[in-house]
Amino acid sequence: MSERVIKVGLCGFGVVGQGVFNHLRKREKLLSDQLGARVEVARIAVRDTSKKRDFEFDASMLTTDPVSIASDPEIDVVCELMGGTGLALEVTLAALKAGKIVVTANKALICDHGERLFTAAKEGGGQILFEASVAGGIPVIKAIKDGLVINRFSSIYGILNGTCNYILTRMTNEGASYEKILEEAKALGYSEADESLDVDGIDSAHKAVVLAYLAYGRWVPYKDILVQGIAEVTQEDIAFAKENGYAIKLLAVIDVAHASGKLYISILPTLVSKKYVLGSVDGVHNAVSIHGDVVGETVYIGPGAGRDATASAVIADVVDATKLIVNGGAGRFVDPAPRNGDQIELAEPEEIESRYYVRLEVADKPGVMAEVASMLAKNEVSLASVTQKEVEENATSATLIITTHYTTEKAILEAVKALEESSSVKGKPFTMPISSFED
Amino acid sequence: MSERVIKVGLCGFGVVGQGVFNHLRKREKLLSDQLGARVEVARIAVRDTSKKRDFEFDASMLTTDPVSIASDPEIDVVCELMGGTGLALEVTLAALKAGKIVVTANKALICDHGERLFTAAKEGGGQILFEASVAGGIPVIKAIKDGLVINRFSSIYGILNGTCNYILTRMTNEGASYEKILEEAKALGYSEADESLDVDGIDSAHKAVVLAYLAYGRWVPYKDILVQGIAEVTQEDIAFAKENGYAIKLLAVIDVAHASGKLYISILPTLVSKKYVLGSVDGVHNAVSIHGDVVGETVYIGPGAGRDATASAVIADVVDATKLIVNGGAGRFVDPAPRNGDQIELAEPEEIESRYYVRLEVADKPGVMAEVASMLAKNEVSLASVTQKEVEENATSATLIITTHYTTEKAILEAVKALEESSSVKGKPFTMPISSFED
Repeated sequence: MSERVIKVGLCGFGVVGQGVFNHLRKREKLLSDQLGARVEVARIAVRDTSKKRDFEFDASMLTTDPVSIASDPEIDVVCELMGGTGLALEVTLAALKAGKIVVTANKALICDHGERLFTAAKEGGGQILFEASVAGGIPVIKAIKDGLVINRFSSIYGILNGTCNYILTRMTNEGASYEKILEEAKALGYSEADESLDVDGIDSAHKAVVLAYLAYGRWVPYKDILVQGIAEVTQEDIAFAKENGYAIKLLAVIDVAHASGKLYISILPTLVSKKYVLGSVDGVHNAVSIHGDVVGETVYIGPGAGRDATASAVIADVVDATKLIVNGGAGRFVDPAPRNGDQIELAEPEEIESRYYVRLEVADKPGVMAEVASMLAKNEVSLASVTQKEVEENATSATLIITTHYTTEKAILEAVKALEESSSVKGKPFTMPISSFED
Repeated sequence: MSERVIKVGLCGFGVVGQGVFNHLRKREKLLSDQLGARVEVARIAVRDTSKKRDFEFDASMLTTDPVSIASDPEIDVVCELMGGTGLALEVTLAALKAGKIVVTANKALICDHGERLFTAAKEGGGQILFEASVAGGIPVIKAIKDGLVINRFSSIYGILNGTCNYILTRMTNEGASYEKILEEAKALGYSEADESLDVDGIDSAHKAVVLAYLAYGRWVPYKDILVQGIAEVTQEDIAFAKENGYAIKLLAVIDVAHASGKLYISILPTLVSKKYVLGSVDGVHNAVSIHGDVVGETVYIGPGAGRDATASAVIADVVDATKLIVNGGAGRFVDPAPRNGDQIELAEPEEIESRYYVRLEVADKPGVMAEVASMLAKNEVSLASVTQKEVEENATSATLIITTHYTTEKAILEAVKALEESSSVKGKPFTMPISSFED
């Protein structure tokens, strides 16, 4: 019997694309034994055909036109590994319209155009698989889609950006400033030349939108997410965290407000208890905690980026695609998210509750503490602790660190705004939630 | 279009069986929307039809003959949730021979009869799915089979028995003896009346055999595994662990010896560094760390047992089975393990290396330390540290705690045997590996 061949087209042949190519070829025999079909990279789209690559391959596979791969009737599976949301969108839509299975690692694409892509898949009889788009090599999307399929989800917490976690870990371990560690991370290749996607929380937000869709069946617009990066975290914050049993993590929170049952997503530097498993996930690692109503909490930890880790996830999807094609289920689009009938609503800031940490620089003069306390009280924010370190004799300002009891996001944002406008407060106060994960 | 119905037969309607029944029914609509087929529990085999159950159901579904379900042509998926390896084997074989998909949570069955069951599945055109057999609700088997499919595995470490982890955690937190905590665990229902399956490491060994098959394609006979339970762990061991930055875990190790490339499996109380994630997984939780050659290390943590957590995993397999049937791939048996051609060999004790901890009771008289040291040296075991706490004036024996440098399992077993036979040593020394997970 002649073996069936599944033809894969790689659109993008950078770090991840070459990793996919290499590992698919190295394990070709093992895969074909398991799958009853041979998985073959048949075409590769690149920007520059003359560029030197890490692996040997037949140059006749190359094209500079990824759309031609997406519409090639010979190609079964299209791997979109170009990044961006321009040409990548065009390629993905073309492939889905042609009824192909698209495998992508592109969280920005899914976040910005998920609804349109899923509709195109449904209409064209294609599928879109995106394991590599969240948490790199950790198969967390398959866990939500398959392993935990019977669950409804009450919350998902994630450390979704390895670069931020790496910087915060080194700031904690070494006592160095954000600026210094970021510079070194760039030199080591752990952060892009333009670091803003990572450190401003944008990448984490893209991933959170994908997770929220899987868990709740709703595409949350990026603009409806409260996103703050790690650039304002200082050694004062880290010292507070250490002294009080916390670690600072850029935490993605996808949660349902207790009272209203509405959904909210935020990406914020957060004080996470060291006793809680996510508080101890350090370095470039990612971690995702998923609360299911049947299973309880499961946690997934591992490498969130890197050529091989991402390739591992892309190939897992290529294998799933191959099984679908071999079994005959490829043409029936399966929406991975539960259709809840009535879509879950988004929570308003007054429905979201947390404890908060506030650091502010105040004038070192009589009456300031009373003024700050009264501004918080006016916004119904109740103080849990206040710390002011002793200042030098000739200093004109002092750092005040405040923690609050449970209050709403609306109240804390308004209180902080009021503080910022006060003449006794210098600069912008820095605020982050405190998550003890006791409940 | 009339909706397709997938008929499920439950063999066993205890805690897990009822959990599966309840959650399948509660989420029937959600599942059928996603799957394009309705999943329906059509028959239930019980031992006692008159027994009161937790959920309402149509009594006409009941039978006392599970084999009749396994051979019922109306049934598509058989869930074997009876436990044991007698009738459960008969039911499973009958269903596989009839080309059905069997879903089981029975690690003892897979461990003891895996090879036979897989052969029966292959020959009969059936499938056997067993997500719930290892680590309860954590979808770790799907991670190995699907999410990490392109990887070869260098090692898997697991905390696979929640009862043992619960007992060790409470011994650590409360300073109470093994016997006292075990008694309380039994009263709370965390341990069976006959605790030996749990505390003697047998349950963990069953699960390790399943994981080893998935990772290496070899069924390792139970008798070839070094298994030791937690009954001999004392507060002296726990005190040593605390003082030196370790936690004691009943750790399943599935590893490949560095030098020889051969496989070994052990279930042993182990000193695990608190800095390593598994050293901080406490209480009834399970955890599995998987090292893949492409992805690196990924770790999975969650509830390892319990009605709902196990039901969550069983239902995930029922959903996979439904997809296979709907798509048309049900009849093509897929072996989840890589076929490596030449099967991996088992390592001998002289090929397995670790650092070790040894606690022994020695006569409090001159020359004993020299004797102990020379016996270890004779077996080529090199001391890293020795501690003898000050003894009371009239004591006749003292506790000696020794840690070694890297040595072989053979050497440590022989050295400990020699110590045991010495007249200066009272009773049986207690030994466990020290895993720093630095490499």
